Amino acid sequence: MHTFGIRFTAIVFMSLAFSSFSRAQLQAQAAQLAIMPLPAQYRLENGQLPIDQAFSVKLSSPRDAYLDLAVARFLRDLSRQTGMTLQNASPGPGSGTAILIIRAEAKSKPMPELGEDESYRLKIAAGGAELSAPNTLGVLRGLQTFLQLVQPMQSGFAVPAVTIEDKPRFPWRGLMIDVARHFMPMEVIKRNLDGLAAVKLNVFHWHLSDNQGFRVESKEFPKLQERGSDGRYYTQQQVREVIAYAQERGIRVVPEFDIPGHSTAWFVGYPELASGPGPYQIERQWGVFDPAMDPTNDDVYKFLDKFIGEMARLFPDRYFHIGGDEVNGKQWDANPKIQEWMRAHGMKTNEQLQTYFTNRVQKIVEKHGKTMVGWDEILNPDSPKSVVIQSWRGQKSLADAARQGYRGLLSTGYYVDLNWPAAQHYAADPLGDGAADLTPEQKQRVLGGEACMWAEYVSPENIDSRIWPRTAAIAERLWSPQNVTDVDSMYARMEKESARLDFLGLTQHTNYGAMLRRIADGGEIDRLKVLADVVEPVKDYDREKLAKTPAVQSTPLNRLIDAARPESDTARRFGHMVDALVAGKADDRTRSEMRSLLAAWQENRAALQPMIAQSFLLAEDAQLSQNLSALGAAGLAAMDYLQSGRPSPESWRTQQLAEIAGAKQPNAQLLLVVAGQVEKLVQATAAR
Amino acid sequence: MHTFGIRFTAIVFMSLAFSSFSRAQLQAQAAQLAIMPLPAQYRLENGQLPIDQAFSVKLSSPRDAYLDLAVARFLRDLSRQTGMTLQNASPGPGSGTAILIIRAEAKSKPMPELGEDESYRLKIAAGGAELSAPNTLGVLRGLQTFLQLVQPMQSGFAVPAVTIEDKPRFPWRGLMIDVARHFMPMEVIKRNLDGLAAVKLNVFHWHLSDNQGFRVESKEFPKLQERGSDGRYYTQQQVREVIAYAQERGIRVVPEFDIPGHSTAWFVGYPELASGPGPYQIERQWGVFDPAMDPTNDDVYKFLDKFIGEMARLFPDRYFHIGGDEVNGKQWDANPKIQEWMRAHGMKTNEQLQTYFTNRVQKIVEKHGKTMVGWDEILNPDSPKSVVIQSWRGQKSLADAARQGYRGLLSTGYYVDLNWPAAQHYAADPLGDGAADLTPEQKQRVLGGEACMWAEYVSPENIDSRIWPRTAAIAERLWSPQNVTDVDSMYARMEKESARLDFLGLTQHTNYGAMLRRIADGGEIDRLKVLADVVEPVKDYDREKLAKTPAVQSTPLNRLIDAARPESDTARRFGHMVDALVAGKADDRTRSEMRSLLAAWQENRAALQPMIAQSFLLAEDAQLSQNLSALGAAGLAAMDYLQSGRPSPESWRTQQLAEIAGAKQPNAQLLLVVAGQVEKLVQATAAR
Repeated sequence: MHTFGIRFTAIVFMSLAFSSFSRAQLQAQAAQLAIMPLPAQYRLENGQLPIDQAFSVKLSSPRDAYLDLAVARFLRDLSRQTGMTLQNASPGPGSGTAILIIRAEAKSKPMPELGEDESYRLKIAAGGAELSAPNTLGVLRGLQTFLQLVQPMQSGFAVPAVTIEDKPRFPWRGLMIDVARHFMPMEVIKRNLDGLAAVKLNVFHWHLSDNQGFRVESKEFPKLQERGSDGRYYTQQQVREVIAYAQERGIRVVPEFDIPGHSTAWFVGYPELASGPGPYQIERQWGVFDPAMDPTNDDVYKFLDKFIGEMARLFPDRYFHIGGDEVNGKQWDANPKIQEWMRAHGMKTNEQLQTYFTNRVQKIVEKHGKTMVGWDEILNPDSPKSVVIQSWRGQKSLADAARQGYRGLLSTGYYVDLNWPAAQHYAADPLGDGAADLTPEQKQRVLGGEACMWAEYVSPENIDSRIWPRTAAIAERLWSPQNVTDVDSMYARMEKESARLDFLGLTQHTNYGAMLRRIADGGEIDRLKVLADVVEPVKDYDREKLAKTPAVQSTPLNRLIDAARPESDTARRFGHMVDALVAGKADDRTRSEMRSLLAAWQENRAALQPMIAQSFLLAEDAQLSQNLSALGAAGLAAMDYLQSGRPSPESWRTQQLAEIAGAKQPNAQLLLVVAGQVEKLVQATAAR
Repeated sequence: MHTFGIRFTAIVFMSLAFSSFSRAQLQAQAAQLAIMPLPAQYRLENGQLPIDQAFSVKLSSPRDAYLDLAVARFLRDLSRQTGMTLQNASPGPGSGTAILIIRAEAKSKPMPELGEDESYRLKIAAGGAELSAPNTLGVLRGLQTFLQLVQPMQSGFAVPAVTIEDKPRFPWRGLMIDVARHFMPMEVIKRNLDGLAAVKLNVFHWHLSDNQGFRVESKEFPKLQERGSDGRYYTQQQVREVIAYAQERGIRVVPEFDIPGHSTAWFVGYPELASGPGPYQIERQWGVFDPAMDPTNDDVYKFLDKFIGEMARLFPDRYFHIGGDEVNGKQWDANPKIQEWMRAHGMKTNEQLQTYFTNRVQKIVEKHGKTMVGWDEILNPDSPKSVVIQSWRGQKSLADAARQGYRGLLSTGYYVDLNWPAAQHYAADPLGDGAADLTPEQKQRVLGGEACMWAEYVSPENIDSRIWPRTAAIAERLWSPQNVTDVDSMYARMEKESARLDFLGLTQHTNYGAMLRRIADGGEIDRLKVLADVVEPVKDYDREKLAKTPAVQSTPLNRLIDAARPESDTARRFGHMVDALVAGKADDRTRSEMRSLLAAWQENRAALQPMIAQSFLLAEDAQLSQNLSALGAAGLAAMDYLQSGRPSPESWRTQQLAEIAGAKQPNAQLLLVVAGQVEKLVQATAAR
């Protein structure tokens, strides 16, 4: 086998730019290579490497426990995703019929660090494969690529022959999980770390405290967890377990303790830290609340010094997130002592007071050997240039910070709790919009971004379905070259990746059925699925706005909105079929599939009626089911008109379009997302 | 609340015999009460008890850690199956709006024992519920009944008002899992123990050794696991963990070490135990093999004395299974020393030799404080009356043993690896057939039965789908009165129970999708599911017979046959529709559903063609897909004839029936089980 050098980090990467390939060719290749995120450079070759039970891995590197673990995990994952027992469950001398040779030039750091080299080169030929990287971390990334390439082909599993040279566009690619609003048990965290590793994300941002819960054990201040968590918190031992689990997968763990606002849960045990009189209870509602730490109280800083010191020892990563967002200042305004202190110190605004707080906290964080990260609000003229800004305000805010010399992360556009389609997240670029005119040096300061899973409406049962697979699209945005923007290719690869995540234990597919069966009282769910497959939860913060009574922490998350996917695959597919039909490009198969779908929709009202009459879990969805039936009927009629070649009567269209407009309105906080597509069909029946 | 006494074990139980209810009424009640197994006695009352987040449990019993754990688990399971966070996660003073009062008259034994009282009484009224039992074990059983009663009703979750007096028909109700042929990790065992508890089974029979693997750590003879397991075995610590997990759920753990045959895996490390010369390798094929222990070698008994002593200390249950089945005697025939020994001892047959072995082993088992259990073959005239016979030969064998004074268990009819429909298992009664004329005393000796999960064709991925939900039907046969035999009711309740098992982590639903997605290379599976939903693996041992090359231990279990359910729900439903239509009793909805199904089948060939052409995992299923399309077309045409009122031409029928006969043949070891139903439809188009 040809052995190629691995000093390829010096090679100039031209994203997707092997010059001999056209854009169309490259798109066709991307469809064939179900890699997500798409590599910086790749070239499909002829042939394929069969993967059978004799497949084996040979390590041609200095021994490294980290690498050994990674290879063992790789072989286990390969076995799971193919359903094949492998003869060699650990790296060996490579005597099998198919061989992957792995070369890591050096070991990686003991803990992953920001900016470490993650590049790798993967060359697959019919006779074997070679994965090389400057360090173990790059090997980890390359092994994920290899797993994604394994496909059932005509004579067995195989990987296509391909040459890949890959490295990330941004060094900080994360997922934040809020475990304060709803606690997530260890297995949820672990399986999501597996998910992050699968799509080459490298930061787990752990939002550990908020008004609704304090989720980590403090030995210095045990009332934090004892009074602030309902008993739902991670012990320090568990935290270490998560960090080790992440480290093995090349993922940094950045803890966030959100202060001075978002901190009611701290005050249940330690009311003396607050700016208003206690006692405090754990907050059970959602929103922005008044309680905030008292920036004028020296004891607060003494407390934080001890606490941050303790957490700085527990969490090895260099970066430490102190939140800093959404302080409404009401407790400060209402406290005469604080007001007097502000006057004495010449402060006129609450922003000034927060700046004072932030900068004192920053010194504490620094004292304990860490670099401070915070949301937009922490940025102020006195901030040292070392701090990192995480922006929920947008690219402009991020670009402004970069111009001022600050490093930043984008999270605007990546809030996966808002139920956006993947394409919408995919379109958000950390260097998009306001960042276009940054200098190269300023652009360097944009470190990447983070998907954010805020937890008002997720339980351990459905959280995976909110994170996955859409976070894979965000991962691609943060890893792949900026010009990788083909949405159809993204969706095709994302769907495959989502299926692969099943084998890592992620539950976005599996719990969908279980939740529907609960709604159907254990009965057959095919009819319910017809409806569930074409609804999506309302977007942005509309769930709050449309709620009859505000949801609280204990509100059951067992309704159709909780089971329904943030983005309907069926609707997206149907949309493509409608577009083809309207453009006169639909074949018989497409028309027949459309009619099948429309017929099932049309029947839905009658089909679901008995279940709706019996169960409160479905009663609220009666209107949706009725609307879906109307859409099915309208769609079928529209197809008849289109097929007949005669335009529909205007009166019919008017009536249908009015009904469709009604069907577009949210019901039970759900959107019937095929309404717009049926509307297109109906409009197409007008004379051209 | 009315408090009733709990000395109800003295009450004469009349199964299903509240005299004021007709059979039809009772059937209607059974449908409403999704309890499985159906209780010995129950009476539905008016009203219901709402179950909301304030639901609480009050213990009115002596404190008992075993009971506390059971209640905590009950509340966790209630929370999971409803998707509601409960305010009271542990038993309390009962201040909530809905209350379940639990009274256990006494603690149960520290470890569950054969024949312990498992009875309970559950009275649910609109104002509250009371569960009482003579001991903790009865409470455990009653809590499962309560969970099954929780349903989504019009205004929320609720349990119907009902009075239940329940106790099992048989004291030994088990599931055997063979972990030798394919090893099953701890999580598989644990989730299946949860499944056993859910349907009130009380024995986990752990088939721990066979030709293909020795699966438990022996400290006395470490080469057993070191050489006989490929590293896939349970440590003694893990065994204790399983026993404790089972004990908490009121389940006995009975280990089986199959000797003197089925023991190749022992001989890899200890060839000196065998009757033929070594060396030995772990057996990789399926079948009955020659190697057997040497019954004439005193060292074998010394070894077994030490080994059984060690295992007798590890497994606390009184019963100890030594297998004893399927010795083909070839090694004995071929060994001159054994032949000489037999002559010297006046033995003419291998049966005599095995009897000699069995009886010596029985004394060893007894010496270590255990009662021996074995398969039919162990029974011989010298067997002490204490031994328990597990019958794979049938009720007659069991009845004969009972007449001779032996206790026995039925497993004939309960082999869940044979892919029988649940109704077929359900029809097998331990006291059926040959046992009908046993005296009451002899009938007492029939202790119950065990479902058997032999593991040639199961992996951790699909084993649950072979065990569940059909084992719930076996559980009902063993718990409920003999006259509980309504198959439709059984299926309706079994389907609901299967959905509930999702929330205990069982994977029969969830892994179906994952396995289909693997076959579909991560793509959309709706089309594949149309086919997968109506095929069943071939029955009995036909998979071996139809295999082109014999399967071995490492054969991948990733084909459609491995994903397909042993029994097709879709086919059963379609069968009911066909029967209704042919009887002229089908309504519009039924006809429309039938046409939708038939149309989807008809399209299947075209729909699956691209996937079949691309992937080896589906290529073998091309003929099935083509046959399904033909069945769809035939069915639609038949419906047209039936609707038109005109008989079909005989030539058409002849041709269709010939095609259907072809479609009934197995393809890719799968049966297209709707073929017979379409056949009925076609036949019905003849003139009446």
